[in-house]
Amino acid sequence: VVVCGGFAQGLTVLCRALRSLGVSVVAMEDPWVPAHRSAASATPLTVVSVPVDGEGMRVDALATRSPGAAFVTPAHQCMLGMAMTPGRRAALLRWAADAGAILVEDDYDGEFRYDRQPVGALQGLDPERVIYAGTASKTLAPGLRLAWLVVPPQLADAVVEAKRLTDGLSGALDQLTLADFIESGGFDRHIRRMRLRYMRRRDLLVAALAERAPALRPSGIAAGLHVILSLPSHGPTEDEAVAHAARRGVALLGLGPFFADRDNHVPGLVVGYGTPPEHGFETALRSLVDVLGELWPV
Amino acid sequence: VVVCGGFAQGLTVLCRALRSLGVSVVAMEDPWVPAHRSAASATPLTVVSVPVDGEGMRVDALATRSPGAAFVTPAHQCMLGMAMTPGRRAALLRWAADAGAILVEDDYDGEFRYDRQPVGALQGLDPERVIYAGTASKTLAPGLRLAWLVVPPQLADAVVEAKRLTDGLSGALDQLTLADFIESGGFDRHIRRMRLRYMRRRDLLVAALAERAPALRPSGIAAGLHVILSLPSHGPTEDEAVAHAARRGVALLGLGPFFADRDNHVPGLVVGYGTPPEHGFETALRSLVDVLGELWPV
Repeated sequence: VVVCGGFAQGLTVLCRALRSLGVSVVAMEDPWVPAHRSAASATPLTVVSVPVDGEGMRVDALATRSPGAAFVTPAHQCMLGMAMTPGRRAALLRWAADAGAILVEDDYDGEFRYDRQPVGALQGLDPERVIYAGTASKTLAPGLRLAWLVVPPQLADAVVEAKRLTDGLSGALDQLTLADFIESGGFDRHIRRMRLRYMRRRDLLVAALAERAPALRPSGIAAGLHVILSLPSHGPTEDEAVAHAARRGVALLGLGPFFADRDNHVPGLVVGYGTPPEHGFETALRSLVDVLGELWPV
Repeated sequence: VVVCGGFAQGLTVLCRALRSLGVSVVAMEDPWVPAHRSAASATPLTVVSVPVDGEGMRVDALATRSPGAAFVTPAHQCMLGMAMTPGRRAALLRWAADAGAILVEDDYDGEFRYDRQPVGALQGLDPERVIYAGTASKTLAPGLRLAWLVVPPQLADAVVEAKRLTDGLSGALDQLTLADFIESGGFDRHIRRMRLRYMRRRDLLVAALAERAPALRPSGIAAGLHVILSLPSHGPTEDEAVAHAARRGVALLGLGPFFADRDNHVPGLVVGYGTPPEHGFETALRSLVDVLGELWPV
């Protein structure tokens, strides 16, 4: 396990390690977080974007690009929110084995799953080929800058060396504090408590949307801290919706910025529900559905 | 000011920023910390090593290599320990202005100066051209991973972007805690207290050396947490001394590993006095001078 300063740094470290292992092209899901693509592009690697469908990253499209490694978010596609299906996982692992490629599993939102058992990690299916990346940014705070990479033994030296070259090591005090929090059971209790709280928020959001803007279908609701609202073919476009909401003082976020390739872009809105403080959540929710109700009246 | 995960990360961030500004070759003092050279070499920059003399980095040797930036340790040359002289500072700044080059001042050991007023920062002489780097690794703990870069306004965007691409940001909790420690005056009190304590250790070390191994001249003693023992031309070589001490259970450190270019290598030993706990210092000192006394008898 290599501890890093947030997944953002883990990504830089992994890209530098992959380069030292001879990889020159890496694949990333499209959509993904633009900052992750930029961080990878700032290393000597070439980044190719691979579209996703309802089952996860499209392995057929991946194979045609012949990357040496692929970054995937199997637990909760970042941003669209579906879990990668068992069939797609099997196809992905088969591709990686055939191509001699490395997979990096960003266990995005893996801890906050509401409606069924946690989805298993891809890493468990092929620990020799999959690097697992977890983070405390969603469970505790992004300002903590603590993430961890579980690295197959034959890749460990390269990753440790890349970490050493990038910043030596991560802060000891935060690591020791988190270790203590985990060992004491406090971390698990915190996640269980927050999972209930976030599930309640999600339920309130989904119910309010059904009542006030039923034309917007929320998806990706089984896990995480945001839902995706796919836009109906009639009514305002993504950009129009964002602009209208801004005039009403509501900061809506479109899906557009998360796509590298405009051809992959599915119009939609990203609605996070993790950030408002507990006492302000219902007020924030009301402002949101007010403006969505104006845009897509019942 | 850009806060980084230790100077090691600051160095990576600066190298990436310098590259984005069109710099392709950077100069570093020889000797310096090997890990710093490796970290810079792991970026797309070419690193050239420039010898130092008793006044600091040799600006004549620097100029012939035409780098776009130079890393220097003016407060306390890392490792030899002399302060860069006023004349050499002026020559360095003149070179940088003529060459359009950027200087990076690693304020190595700047806080622990014992025998006279603190040496001024190079950055104060040309704030538009010098990036100042400070760290809490010596004053508090290396495990804290907190360093700071004071960046001229016209370079700030590039450095901030490189930091963003490298790991997003540094941990908020440690930064807030340190800020509080500084504002409360506790940090200054801590440095004053530790300065006295380290000065006492240094005095004990210098006195014990004079008594037990007077052939070894300690230098670089005006500041920092180590002294350099230059080896006399007679007696054991650096490698022989390290090997002999190891057989006696004393881990001596030679100067050799700190030189990039064997031609610059001045034989010597690096003796740190910051690490032993207070109650163990005199025992450690006795073991050290016992073995040095065997190697260079009075």
